[in-house]
Amino acid sequence: MPGMAKNFWKTDPRDALKAGLTFDLSTLDRNGRPGWAGNKSRGEAYMAARGEELSDLQEKLFAEGRSGGERSVLLVLQGLDTAGKGGIVRHVMGMVDPQGVKLASFGVPTAEERAHHYLWRIEKQLPPAGRIGVFDRSHYEDVLVVRVDELVPEAEWQGRYDEINAWEEKLIAGGTTIVKVALMVSYDEQGARLAERLDRPDKYWKFSPSDITTRSKWPAYQQAYADVFARTSTEKAPWYVVPADRKWYARLAVTEILTQTLESLDLGWPAATFDVAEMQAALAKTNQASV
Amino acid sequence: MPGMAKNFWKTDPRDALKAGLTFDLSTLDRNGRPGWAGNKSRGEAYMAARGEELSDLQEKLFAEGRSGGERSVLLVLQGLDTAGKGGIVRHVMGMVDPQGVKLASFGVPTAEERAHHYLWRIEKQLPPAGRIGVFDRSHYEDVLVVRVDELVPEAEWQGRYDEINAWEEKLIAGGTTIVKVALMVSYDEQGARLAERLDRPDKYWKFSPSDITTRSKWPAYQQAYADVFARTSTEKAPWYVVPADRKWYARLAVTEILTQTLESLDLGWPAATFDVAEMQAALAKTNQASV
Repeated sequence: MPGMAKNFWKTDPRDALKAGLTFDLSTLDRNGRPGWAGNKSRGEAYMAARGEELSDLQEKLFAEGRSGGERSVLLVLQGLDTAGKGGIVRHVMGMVDPQGVKLASFGVPTAEERAHHYLWRIEKQLPPAGRIGVFDRSHYEDVLVVRVDELVPEAEWQGRYDEINAWEEKLIAGGTTIVKVALMVSYDEQGARLAERLDRPDKYWKFSPSDITTRSKWPAYQQAYADVFARTSTEKAPWYVVPADRKWYARLAVTEILTQTLESLDLGWPAATFDVAEMQAALAKTNQASV
Repeated sequence: MPGMAKNFWKTDPRDALKAGLTFDLSTLDRNGRPGWAGNKSRGEAYMAARGEELSDLQEKLFAEGRSGGERSVLLVLQGLDTAGKGGIVRHVMGMVDPQGVKLASFGVPTAEERAHHYLWRIEKQLPPAGRIGVFDRSHYEDVLVVRVDELVPEAEWQGRYDEINAWEEKLIAGGTTIVKVALMVSYDEQGARLAERLDRPDKYWKFSPSDITTRSKWPAYQQAYADVFARTSTEKAPWYVVPADRKWYARLAVTEILTQTLESLDLGWPAATFDVAEMQAALAKTNQASV
């Protein structure tokens, strides 16, 4: 009985996890569970219950989009290899109707993508009205891997933070609610998860030799993430920095943040765009017809 | 316990539902449950168990695609309004990882789409390697609504059956397994489902006045569907005609057909494309590094 699941959120995770002015990534406990006072099984039960609410809200958002509404939601997922981005897609987004979700993954840019502005391939994947878009990696890679691997000169990536803020503000003005989530795994936990991928033949396909190269640049990535939070966690589109060593906590927290975000949209069922009584009469007429 | 769910399929639904040479749509019992000897709750339990297997198989297909494999699966869903296409997407495809599914809906063509060959917009939505593509309506609309509403001259749509067969054969040769499912609801059940959409304000958004117009052309649509089955149910890409008055049966049957289809692909985990021992050593080295 989902209704029976008890709520152990003592602090709204949107408050507990938001990267504010004083946020310090270097002191984040990546094994923590900020705001949640229950254990794992309580967390899983509450997540399932909230997932049903999320699914209902998503249907209302979809209905609104089908009836002329222009609002949408965009969940931006960032995190290093093994942080659990795919698990969020599978276990959180898997709770809602696939028809309401538009998923996009951003890997190494293709030649065509590199020939365009870095936001070009991102804009093509924005969610239409009524959908929840999910970005598995995003435009933030253009100030993360691009910075760490020096793929463009510093002057160029330095200008991108403000550009991204302005671009996101434009999206928000157009009706898109942006939810930015960074899954932060600890160095030790990343090592353990990579080791598992090398120990299990059913996980080999998730491993790439480049994962080790990326891991060897850990301090540079932490600095790059810290700057992302410092420079792009805005009032309208804040970053939620989620400790990700406990997968159940990260999934529970993202479920809650997303559900609360949809609740805040005050969604309702759209009014009929036709005369209901007239249509009922027309339908009754067809029901008398023989076929 | 999914493992406990008992299998009440007495006939493989791929045999029970395939539209063969002697298939006669006019005698189909749309309230039937061909091949399944259990009741609804048995059906729901077995569907959930098979859904877990479908999910595992989908992950293997995805892994294969990520490792250079070229195979994909395409589920084509056809059916009149209220037949339950959306319910299949939600309840069957909702059981697998959203990352492995590419969903496309085909509504009334846009001006740009009408300016191209009718297969142009379809080809753009084909599943990439490793994915299960799902078409909610499809190229078959070009011999259904297009025929019934006389949107092109008869000589034109008459030529499309062979063209579609040849096009599908090309897809199959390229590694795509095509599963064509038609959900066939009875006239009375469609009337009841439309009435519910007009009775419930949370369902208004699913109703369109054009649904009544389409319903009034029932006999023409039945003839058009019968011809689709007669002319495009090929050996390599047969039609499965699913009685859809019982939603639980239709979802159970599609789950079973899809799961058996993936089972028949003999999927396994891809071999490592790197030297596992070498990578384990490189990883161990990073684990000794301090960060």
